[in-house]
Amino acid sequence: MADLLYVPLSELGRLRGLEATPERLVSAFAAACRINTLYMIARAGSGHIGTSFSSIDLVSWLFLEEMRLPTDGGATGDLYFSSKGHDAPALYAVLTALGLLDFALIHGLRRLGGLPGHPDVATPFVEANTGSLGMGISKAKGMALANRLLGAPSRIYVMTGDGELQEGQIWESLPSAAALGLGEICAIVDHNKIQSDTWVADVSDLGDLTAKFSAFGWHVERADGHDFGAVAAAFRRLRVITDRPKVLIADTVKGKGVSFMEPAGMEATDRMYRFHSGAPSPEVYAKAVEELIDTASARLRELGGGELRLERESRPETAIPGRVHRLVTAYSRALVRQAESNPRLVVLDADLVLDCGLIPFRQRFPDRFFECGIAEQDMVSQAGGMARRGLLPVVHSFACFLSARPNEHIYNNATERTKVVYVASLAGLLPAGPGHSHQSVRDISALGGVPDLIMIEPSTEDEAEEALDFCVNVAPSSCYLRLVSVPAEIPYALPADHRLSLGRGAVLREGRDAALIGYGPVLLTQAYRAAELLARQTEIQVAVIDLPWLNRVDGDWLAEVAGHYPWLFTLDNHYVHGGQGQMILAALAELSGRPLPRARRLGVTHIPLCGDNVEVLGAHGLDAEGIAEQIRQALAGER
Amino acid sequence: MADLLYVPLSELGRLRGLEATPERLVSAFAAACRINTLYMIARAGSGHIGTSFSSIDLVSWLFLEEMRLPTDGGATGDLYFSSKGHDAPALYAVLTALGLLDFALIHGLRRLGGLPGHPDVATPFVEANTGSLGMGISKAKGMALANRLLGAPSRIYVMTGDGELQEGQIWESLPSAAALGLGEICAIVDHNKIQSDTWVADVSDLGDLTAKFSAFGWHVERADGHDFGAVAAAFRRLRVITDRPKVLIADTVKGKGVSFMEPAGMEATDRMYRFHSGAPSPEVYAKAVEELIDTASARLRELGGGELRLERESRPETAIPGRVHRLVTAYSRALVRQAESNPRLVVLDADLVLDCGLIPFRQRFPDRFFECGIAEQDMVSQAGGMARRGLLPVVHSFACFLSARPNEHIYNNATERTKVVYVASLAGLLPAGPGHSHQSVRDISALGGVPDLIMIEPSTEDEAEEALDFCVNVAPSSCYLRLVSVPAEIPYALPADHRLSLGRGAVLREGRDAALIGYGPVLLTQAYRAAELLARQTEIQVAVIDLPWLNRVDGDWLAEVAGHYPWLFTLDNHYVHGGQGQMILAALAELSGRPLPRARRLGVTHIPLCGDNVEVLGAHGLDAEGIAEQIRQALAGER
Repeated sequence: MADLLYVPLSELGRLRGLEATPERLVSAFAAACRINTLYMIARAGSGHIGTSFSSIDLVSWLFLEEMRLPTDGGATGDLYFSSKGHDAPALYAVLTALGLLDFALIHGLRRLGGLPGHPDVATPFVEANTGSLGMGISKAKGMALANRLLGAPSRIYVMTGDGELQEGQIWESLPSAAALGLGEICAIVDHNKIQSDTWVADVSDLGDLTAKFSAFGWHVERADGHDFGAVAAAFRRLRVITDRPKVLIADTVKGKGVSFMEPAGMEATDRMYRFHSGAPSPEVYAKAVEELIDTASARLRELGGGELRLERESRPETAIPGRVHRLVTAYSRALVRQAESNPRLVVLDADLVLDCGLIPFRQRFPDRFFECGIAEQDMVSQAGGMARRGLLPVVHSFACFLSARPNEHIYNNATERTKVVYVASLAGLLPAGPGHSHQSVRDISALGGVPDLIMIEPSTEDEAEEALDFCVNVAPSSCYLRLVSVPAEIPYALPADHRLSLGRGAVLREGRDAALIGYGPVLLTQAYRAAELLARQTEIQVAVIDLPWLNRVDGDWLAEVAGHYPWLFTLDNHYVHGGQGQMILAALAELSGRPLPRARRLGVTHIPLCGDNVEVLGAHGLDAEGIAEQIRQALAGER
Repeated sequence: MADLLYVPLSELGRLRGLEATPERLVSAFAAACRINTLYMIARAGSGHIGTSFSSIDLVSWLFLEEMRLPTDGGATGDLYFSSKGHDAPALYAVLTALGLLDFALIHGLRRLGGLPGHPDVATPFVEANTGSLGMGISKAKGMALANRLLGAPSRIYVMTGDGELQEGQIWESLPSAAALGLGEICAIVDHNKIQSDTWVADVSDLGDLTAKFSAFGWHVERADGHDFGAVAAAFRRLRVITDRPKVLIADTVKGKGVSFMEPAGMEATDRMYRFHSGAPSPEVYAKAVEELIDTASARLRELGGGELRLERESRPETAIPGRVHRLVTAYSRALVRQAESNPRLVVLDADLVLDCGLIPFRQRFPDRFFECGIAEQDMVSQAGGMARRGLLPVVHSFACFLSARPNEHIYNNATERTKVVYVASLAGLLPAGPGHSHQSVRDISALGGVPDLIMIEPSTEDEAEEALDFCVNVAPSSCYLRLVSVPAEIPYALPADHRLSLGRGAVLREGRDAALIGYGPVLLTQAYRAAELLARQTEIQVAVIDLPWLNRVDGDWLAEVAGHYPWLFTLDNHYVHGGQGQMILAALAELSGRPLPRARRLGVTHIPLCGDNVEVLGAHGLDAEGIAEQIRQALAGER
């Protein structure tokens, strides 16, 4: 497999030492940083190319020409952060190129101990944890007010996306910045016109952005975000505005720098932009890097800098999995089938039509598909209104967002006693590359107490289909369908005669010394393998049980399980606190039989680590070896 | 004590039958409805007078002149609902006057089986559950889209507050309504210029509302909301706009109709508007109703309707409590003391400066007080930014809002590993008058799993002070301080040598047959009385234990408790699911000792009822009698 190329630190230093206008120098610098950005994402196997390429010219200009860089790791000096956060690789490329971050970290994007997929303040010069959208201007306001109080003023630059402007919090945050005259805040809209799925204007048009920001009391400038002369002039104009907050609407191009990643390179029939997230294939990488190298080399030559020197690393091997279960794909098919027989079923989406498996539905039932944009609260309340008028809304987003951003709204809908089906993908610890903003390990807790909300997580493709059928046709009230998005090669099968029965589980593997109850393909797979490990290496025989119900357990069923095993373990793809295990053990304590089996909860106990899936499962003690070891120690009475 | 007066249904019918222009007729009708609105609130002992009086002219006009009223209980016809929901008494006055609701319900505001404090769809002609702010336009959009799909179009009128426009969701919801051309939606801003605490312009100025709505693509009209000619003309103009959503910015007067409740009647030095919520004293009621009767009588006479006939009901007696604990007041004092020795402590508020006890702090430390308006997400993210810069932000709102609206934001702050203190008042089932939008019985679950967040609820004034000290000076990480707002006359005292110790509780009453673990003054009081009841009526001796830690329990301490009692009960002022009891029982199941005591969770098991505090506690089985009965039955093995 072809190697991956990057521009070494020495070469970046050489480039920065050349004599040229700031505009030409930053242009060459950004071109080199694009090579390293692509390198990081290709090596990591995931990341956001399009938005990194649209913002990197601006980020380069900020760090090289506009900001007074902090001299002590961030306590003083100007502050920059990206509110969208998806363009972290661009920032990392700039920071490593400037020696502000250890250059060796470019080899560790989305790896344990490396650079997280979305920004985390544990990384030097990262000022805010982002990736959850819409919070940036609020955070900047807090920083500005604190700086004023502490007598340590600084300018604060916040990059936002344009799709991100669909989040209500952006508009919620604008007025007081104007009222308080927070002229130290400069927002920059990376206005690349494309959000994750497709054109912003097609999802939820922003209208006249200048008029909107102006109506909210902000000073507005607009410039071509790839024209360094225009960018320089815009920041000069912005710098003299000190009595009110200001925004630079930067017209940019998603995927800028690689012709076929730019929208101009899209086929006329393409509705989807293909380079929002995910790693390039080896072929795409080779084509893209060639173009990036050509551009950077040309710019370097223009500056009299000679040839660009590159270094290479071999591309990490990707394991090829066997028969994998893709729950979202199974769900996607099932949704269309349900819709065929349920004319009142409608689908709502928050800019994740591809990731949530909704393209087949949209194609089949365009009139019953509602794209709400990055506006989860609006989406959920709309669903509430639809349900009140007699429809069955099926609402989609990632679990991390759906459970939290419209948390009050889901409860409000529940108090109307209508039925809404919430479908949350990207559930659990994996994929671990995006980092904790996207690793949903708190949703069972955040929504588990919503009255009459039934939460369910399938562990196979068939069960995903059955779970949707339950939500649509059986459940008397609202449901939360939690879906793992990573493909899982599962070693178990549900019993052939298996049917979902509320609060009851299914035995995947028989045992004698302990039962381990869990859910979902990621950790049931590890649990099954842990049981096999224990059987091979010790005398311990562990039964593995799938309980797809996340906030319901049948007392009689549990009593039966409790009567069979001296030990009961639970296993949560979620924080232990508030997860399924807590619910099961509380029910266990309420059983009348005595003595009860010994019990212990396994699951996530601290903020999820970012890294590749295998290393992160291991680091949390939730791979087969870690689970087996925890069971072995418990039974041995070692803890 | 003086009687309460209302206009009987027959008199309202007589009024409506008079010959006059619509403007004059509705004017007289609204004047009569103001009398009944005041009657309902005075009788209930709580409710929102100011906003009911500012919107009632508009609501009257809508129902009498503008809307095509549904003929079948709401399935067809035009729809109206209030997004703010606080003005429910005004709507009830109109609906009962028109015979759309049983007139006898005017005697049952905020009572069990009566009319809920905030709108609930269980009430005929109430189209949405509101009281949680900012959701209305989104819900209207959902209704409009559903109506279109179902081929049952109708006009949809949504009343919003003006303070409510500070919520980001309002602006999140506007663009797609414009893009989709939802001309059937007409929003009405009850622009009375005062939000719960004080002037909107002082809290978070709205700026040029017309420019803002226009920039978002909405058609805007503006009119005096108490001038029926102007209102009529505005709705005529609005009716012909069918290609886009529209908004009527209605300039209104808070408390309109009672001179001393209008801002013009405020003292020049008054910073607080006094009639946002709460019942009038007997003296205030008498003065107000006299003025309302004068106005209504005059309008009736102008129409040739003769004298206004009124009926009277005696005012319900209010019990006078003994020595009560007011936790928010104790907290308020303690906050100032902490701030005196912690210069980095800053306070943020979301338009609840009075209810959250923040006026003393604001007076003492105006530079360290940040009023964020009704913008909880913005507030919490600002606090995150402040914490990142070295401050200790103490963030305030009602528990129902603080735990839910900025749910993702609190988690995001936690992932930055900074320290923020969240202080949530109005916690738990009581007061029961406002209804389920305000009864916070889900917050422990919604936030309990936030990593390193320590949740604590004090049960006495002293413990409130100590709890704040813990949060500010002891806790290594963020805290959630949960405060009951209702004054509580408590029968117990904490041991004289009591000191907070993480995860450990204090015995309030000794026992033998069972231990009951709970928290907070409302239910510990009931628990204590239940134990006394059981001791008097049976042989059962129940220990009562205060465990102020909502998501932490010390294993050794719990083992000790478990070893002492054959039965362990938990008692949650919260849903049983996800409450403290679930946390305790899961930890109990993990103890190594066997046999474990029998265990059972008590708490809220369904959506909170609205009513007076005593009847609601009883209806949930959480008054002393209910708790005693559940314990008795459990010990008798009856369930």
